[in-house]
Amino acid sequence: MSSFHSVQWLDKGVVRMLDQRKLPHETIYNEYTTAEQVAEAIHDMVIRGAPAIGAAAAYGLCLVGAHTRHDSATGLQIELNEAAETLRQARPTAVNLFWAIDRMMNRLNDPALDSIEALQAAALAEAKAIAAEDVAINKQIGRNAMPLVPDGATIIHHCNTGSLATVDYGTALGIIRMAHEEGKNVFALVDETRPRLQGGRLTAYELQQYGVPFQVIVDGASGHFMRVKGVDLCVVGADRVAANGDTANKIGTYNLAVVAHENGVPFYVAAPTTTIDLATPTGDEIEIEERPALEVTTVGTWQITPDDTPVGNPAFDVTPAKYITAIISEKGVAYPPFEKSLAALMANE
Amino acid sequence: MSSFHSVQWLDKGVVRMLDQRKLPHETIYNEYTTAEQVAEAIHDMVIRGAPAIGAAAAYGLCLVGAHTRHDSATGLQIELNEAAETLRQARPTAVNLFWAIDRMMNRLNDPALDSIEALQAAALAEAKAIAAEDVAINKQIGRNAMPLVPDGATIIHHCNTGSLATVDYGTALGIIRMAHEEGKNVFALVDETRPRLQGGRLTAYELQQYGVPFQVIVDGASGHFMRVKGVDLCVVGADRVAANGDTANKIGTYNLAVVAHENGVPFYVAAPTTTIDLATPTGDEIEIEERPALEVTTVGTWQITPDDTPVGNPAFDVTPAKYITAIISEKGVAYPPFEKSLAALMANE
Repeated sequence: MSSFHSVQWLDKGVVRMLDQRKLPHETIYNEYTTAEQVAEAIHDMVIRGAPAIGAAAAYGLCLVGAHTRHDSATGLQIELNEAAETLRQARPTAVNLFWAIDRMMNRLNDPALDSIEALQAAALAEAKAIAAEDVAINKQIGRNAMPLVPDGATIIHHCNTGSLATVDYGTALGIIRMAHEEGKNVFALVDETRPRLQGGRLTAYELQQYGVPFQVIVDGASGHFMRVKGVDLCVVGADRVAANGDTANKIGTYNLAVVAHENGVPFYVAAPTTTIDLATPTGDEIEIEERPALEVTTVGTWQITPDDTPVGNPAFDVTPAKYITAIISEKGVAYPPFEKSLAALMANE
Repeated sequence: MSSFHSVQWLDKGVVRMLDQRKLPHETIYNEYTTAEQVAEAIHDMVIRGAPAIGAAAAYGLCLVGAHTRHDSATGLQIELNEAAETLRQARPTAVNLFWAIDRMMNRLNDPALDSIEALQAAALAEAKAIAAEDVAINKQIGRNAMPLVPDGATIIHHCNTGSLATVDYGTALGIIRMAHEEGKNVFALVDETRPRLQGGRLTAYELQQYGVPFQVIVDGASGHFMRVKGVDLCVVGADRVAANGDTANKIGTYNLAVVAHENGVPFYVAAPTTTIDLATPTGDEIEIEERPALEVTTVGTWQITPDDTPVGNPAFDVTPAKYITAIISEKGVAYPPFEKSLAALMANE
């Protein structure tokens, strides 16, 4: 386990999150007692990463149960459904958020849960199951990926997909971590990942802790490293994978995938099945969140651009399936054609 | 002409440069009186951009003449050759630097220049000619490019290639500026250009002054804009163009070119013939400058990464000729195969 926790339930009815906006310079844990606060923390990216925000939303619903002012199960269920709606609005692209909320509400709308106490217990049990499963899923993704990672591989990674982006261990970064733990002498090239610099701030922070050798590079340098220095594979996470394999992930992923394709470098997406959304036929149907200009115009307290600079700041992009070598889930590795392989994977219980 | 000057000769024997590291927040002009100071300013990127550093080096040699402590032409010529060597070391990739120094020294090593005064006058005349020609060349590049820029075009631009990167007007950015001045309703998408953010800092600053509508985007977003929003062309500058058309330019250019190629977006290189180096057969022979880690780990005074983060920071990359639609010079537009078209261009007086 890691020495930090992206999100934790404290028994007194508090959700604690590591404020990732402050990393790596300050390690500050924020405490939340309402679902609205959790929704705001997700929106403001105190916590980010598809699996982590799913777990955070699940715990957010536990807060509603813990602090309800209702005295009937029916009243609390109405309150829970309202809170679920608020949490759903926090971010539009990552499907785990919706998946975790749906799973929680499927459980909590059960009429058999006919007391406040029963709802509280069911919420907490479900949220803790989501969190525990996430860690197990991530490790299984790592195990499934190991045959794809050669000894001595140089690996480009985009954004942060480690313990900070999940409940623990990580998806794409979990693969790099496991390869390192297995003694494979891997070397990571860390895309810094503008605008929020999750690579330079968070992935560098995690890799230092794990002892994985790495270099941070600017996003625009990935192709140069492939062409001149030699890169063996790229591995990234996913915020949503459509039925045809098109993958929404952090802005910059598409450029990386195209350049990898052009250089014959395998491009892998690490995606728990909770991010695979068969209800979305292609990437064209995925809503892309536009985020504030301030993320581009300033870094920390430092303003980069002239005053009043107009900015385009899509938080994600869609990588068409044709650039993806394989999608690595906890249920197995899917290869093209992804319509078939992802459907088979999801049917596999 | 622009309201600022990247580099200027002041009659009292002083070279004045706008400190581009401080832009857009502070407009500070530094004054230099020795060639060593000019070399340091080029190395530290007080001034940058291939044409601008060529002109700066030429004026640097004028400083040697202006302040010589020799009393014979022969002594001064030795001093000039030593200073030329120092200036040559300032940066390794841009060929204009070497071209401008060679041009100056070819003139100044003339034995007919047999007095201090004759050498001083010849140096200044030659440097002023280099500077004046640069502006004329840039405008001719713009005129040659106009048929390639459709009305209403959305144009991605990388780094800064405007008045700040040249003596005045600019190369690639000069094309955008001229299209705007001609009423073509162009819209610029400005790659911010990590690590030194020449796009977000300098190109945004220039475009605001010229009244060209634009948005700054992170480098990783270029492909998303091409795929989803529609981009009509990309235009970039060049630090060195090899005989086969391979082009060294600011890091991130190669990724942009590959993504443009994949999306069928024309990719143009604006290159004065002084950056075309027929003596370099291909991009593989171009030395790529590695710059300090601090450029990646910090922005302004803000540290991004954890302490002791290892960094790879190549300042340039090479875009193979196959991704380049055309190379636009003041002598005309070269199309593939570039071996032939560039040789023909350079033979054309």
